[in-house]
Amino acid sequence: MSKKALSDIQSGPDFRRIDIDKVGVKGVSYPIIVLDKKNKFQHTVASINMYVDLPHQFKGTHMSRFVEILNEHRREITVHNFPIILEKMKKRFNASTAHLEVEFPYFIEKAAPVSKAKGLMEYRCAYRGTLHTERDFVVDVRVPVLTVCPCSKEISDRGAHNQRGLVTVSMRLAGFVWIEDIIKTVEASASSPVYSLLKRVDEKHVTERSFDNPMFVEDVVREVAMNLGRMKKIKWFSVEAENWESIHNHSAYAFVERGRG
Amino acid sequence: MSKKALSDIQSGPDFRRIDIDKVGVKGVSYPIIVLDKKNKFQHTVASINMYVDLPHQFKGTHMSRFVEILNEHRREITVHNFPIILEKMKKRFNASTAHLEVEFPYFIEKAAPVSKAKGLMEYRCAYRGTLHTERDFVVDVRVPVLTVCPCSKEISDRGAHNQRGLVTVSMRLAGFVWIEDIIKTVEASASSPVYSLLKRVDEKHVTERSFDNPMFVEDVVREVAMNLGRMKKIKWFSVEAENWESIHNHSAYAFVERGRG
Amino acid sequence: MSKKALSDIQSGPDFRRIDIDKVGVKGVSYPIIVLDKKNKFQHTVASINMYVDLPHQFKGTHMSRFVEILNEHRREITVHNFPIILEKMKKRFNASTAHLEVEFPYFIEKAAPVSKAKGLMEYRCAYRGTLHTERDFVVDVRVPVLTVCPCSKEISDRGAHNQRGLVTVSMRLAGFVWIEDIIKTVEASASSPVYSLLKRVDEKHVTERSFDNPMFVEDVVREVAMNLGRMKKIKWFSVEAENWESIHNHSAYAFVERGRG
Amino acid sequence: MSKKALSDIQSGPDFRRIDIDKVGVKGVSYPIIVLDKKNKFQHTVASINMYVDLPHQFKGTHMSRFVEILNEHRREITVHNFPIILEKMKKRFNASTAHLEVEFPYFIEKAAPVSKAKGLMEYRCAYRGTLHTERDFVVDVRVPVLTVCPCSKEISDRGAHNQRGLVTVSMRLAGFVWIEDIIKTVEASASSPVYSLLKRVDEKHVTERSFDNPMFVEDVVREVAMNLGRMKKIKWFSVEAENWESIHNHSAYAFVERGRG
Repeated sequence: MSKKALSDIQSGPDFRRIDIDKVGVKGVSYPIIVLDKKNKFQHTVASINMYVDLPHQFKGTHMSRFVEILNEHRREITVHNFPIILEKMKKRFNASTAHLEVEFPYFIEKAAPVSKAKGLMEYRCAYRGTLHTERDFVVDVRVPVLTVCPCSKEISDRGAHNQRGLVTVSMRLAGFVWIEDIIKTVEASASSPVYSLLKRVDEKHVTERSFDNPMFVEDVVREVAMNLGRMKKIKWFSVEAENWESIHNHSAYAFVERGRG
Repeated sequence: MSKKALSDIQSGPDFRRIDIDKVGVKGVSYPIIVLDKKNKFQHTVASINMYVDLPHQFKGTHMSRFVEILNEHRREITVHNFPIILEKMKKRFNASTAHLEVEFPYFIEKAAPVSKAKGLMEYRCAYRGTLHTERDFVVDVRVPVLTVCPCSKEISDRGAHNQRGLVTVSMRLAGFVWIEDIIKTVEASASSPVYSLLKRVDEKHVTERSFDNPMFVEDVVREVAMNLGRMKKIKWFSVEAENWESIHNHSAYAFVERGRG
Repeated sequence: MSKKALSDIQSGPDFRRIDIDKVGVKGVSYPIIVLDKKNKFQHTVASINMYVDLPHQFKGTHMSRFVEILNEHRREITVHNFPIILEKMKKRFNASTAHLEVEFPYFIEKAAPVSKAKGLMEYRCAYRGTLHTERDFVVDVRVPVLTVCPCSKEISDRGAHNQRGLVTVSMRLAGFVWIEDIIKTVEASASSPVYSLLKRVDEKHVTERSFDNPMFVEDVVREVAMNLGRMKKIKWFSVEAENWESIHNHSAYAFVERGRG
Repeated sequence: MSKKALSDIQSGPDFRRIDIDKVGVKGVSYPIIVLDKKNKFQHTVASINMYVDLPHQFKGTHMSRFVEILNEHRREITVHNFPIILEKMKKRFNASTAHLEVEFPYFIEKAAPVSKAKGLMEYRCAYRGTLHTERDFVVDVRVPVLTVCPCSKEISDRGAHNQRGLVTVSMRLAGFVWIEDIIKTVEASASSPVYSLLKRVDEKHVTERSFDNPMFVEDVVREVAMNLGRMKKIKWFSVEAENWESIHNHSAYAFVERGRG
């Protein structure tokens, strides 16, 4: 070996007296398995961030340990073993706080409303957890929807502008909640759900149903907020809706937050 | 100075006998001035790529020279001095081929259709040129539009799904053509233009006009192709339309290419 | 005109009793002029978000008013007129809270360290303000830097892995601070600044200087935090550093927050 | 049902006499299974584009059929059934040309060079095929690598700037080639491979090995080109290298194309 022993720089002292809130790895791409209401589990690909705090007296963090912890759990990252991974991070790094963020596309087979033809819809989700003395755990679910503009419908002699929108729900839970149920709630709170496969009879149905059910971004966030507000297992939530306006080159946006974070 | 003279590694020999087609800098962010039909010129910010070929006997390229050439022209990058920059690249690098690509947002003040309220619309454009023994020059113009689905309108008792789409035109020219004129042509080839500012009377107008003028992506590329085909100064073009379908979570897409590249 | 008077749906009542925290326009692309320490002002292109709150009794917001307000100020968006725009938003929408977010690339001419050859560096910045009964104003500055890994240098007989990183500073201020001064502070807190144009003598200088000054992401955020902590006009700041690790396919990340938000 | 029979607008006539080169769906997100040299197959998530040509006499395409075809094959999209899917597209749409593009992250377990600690590396790949009277099939493989600058090393008394780069290989094949073998070839053609997990002994190894093996983007594309050129099963290839320069805020880029497309 070389003249230099493989000295452990990171464990050396630091004298600037500045505690670091978060330090770790960001954007680790990783294939994972998550729980699935219908098929028990599904394979997907996640982008993962892992951070711990670092007290002022230490110079650095041993970054490779994050990936090692990930490797020990790679067959499954779920709401169930999430706290275990955080606990392990805290212990392995001798940290007082650990953060884990896992973003992934989640797929659900959805039948078209009339023909019942089946297609796979993608919903981008995330688990974001922190373990200090207490635990914090947030679930994000992103649901594309269709919105028809009530103003456009009202003032026009025919037609109404409509567009795809994206609703993002973030939640803190008091019990287990299926992603599938949140998605259903959000899709019921827009002018219409969005589908990956629609036959002609379905397209007619979606067009008419959404036209009969016009909603502003304001309406969408209020409907979602009302519906989530009734779910006992949700302690806190935020909901944002972004409409890729079909008549503009920018988005319409609304945001509501409720409960105790 | 150090023991090492600042030896010119790049100018050294290479023995692998492999000519390099393109080598240079990519993604240089740069504020530029471009020609403007109404205001003579406008300030914008470009992302720039500059490449030359490298014969097999040379090891490397002097990358800093690309940025130096850019600096000599930073007050203006237009269709007029574009060939001059390419010529300079060819000469400075002693290359047989030079490539220059400049992408930038271009802004046009557009009046709403009824209220005439004015707003600024952004259109992403690009100049892409190559100088070998002959010159090649391509202009790209991206135009957001509104499309109403003819099928949805026809089969539904009320309403019709519609969405924002993006039309990308690429052209090789036989004379000077204003970006403004291409944009006008594309906007006239969709169900309706898109606006940054619409008052209620305008929204009514756009809704009804687009409903009366339903178009598939197929119709959009055909209309644009017909209209560009009539412009004598355009030798070659391609046109693609991408609709961010409001009823799906994916896009509908169509592409047509005409003329001699 | 049609059978329908252009009724004002948005001003109608809503009975769901849900106040909306933020509603408005997102992603408006807009050419703006900002203050520049050296040249007084500079032209750039911004992406703008504008939101207000909406009390529960009203159905919707008049989105076009946001763009109208923007149009009234388009020649200049600076730290000086920012509160004026927020005030106008609050008044025009009869809102209790207004939010304005403006992101833009900012360019500074920077001389290479030895040759003094000049190049333009891009720094992505943002102003983010909220006006309720009190005002909140945050400035973001993103500074690309070079970091050499201290561990790699220490344990290796030769060389040390290094990479580009991005440092993002967010600040709440107690007085006027030039973006240029923040950038200088950050660049002095890394292994080396990054340049758009370097001649061979400069490359030698940057290589040796950064090698003599190895820094982890942890070191970078601590150095920046120490230096910003000394600036009296900064009441609160956060600083994050992300290294696009040259030996990995993911980033190393660190984050520190200080002061009263 | 409504007054309107569900008339088939798309099958109606068109009189503009413009054939459409490509029409279809773009950006369909889909979980797929691909072949894996070590584990036989692996689960991943793809982004899929599907197009056919449309003769001038027809008004439109039945977009839902693309997703139906996809659904029939969703358990597996490989080099083996790719031509079958294209054939099906051609037949189902009665088209003369069909295009299928499938992009996906591909994961390989890679041992660190000294400790042999295992980590999962992500490589973004794509299959892009066209079926007309003849078949065309292109495989893309993107490999992140580490490059040390030869010029910086030569002129500096100590150290050398280095950075992560991305090498993209596109190939037309005369036989079956494993993605794993292309990746190995590319990784051997840079200053060093990149890893997801490195212990201290590995970091020392990677640092020294890459320092001993400095390469420009020019060198990388030449090495890859030489090595691919020797593989009999590759009829045509292009290789591009992009270095996210650690001393600049832009990339260095090189491109080589060889063989008959």
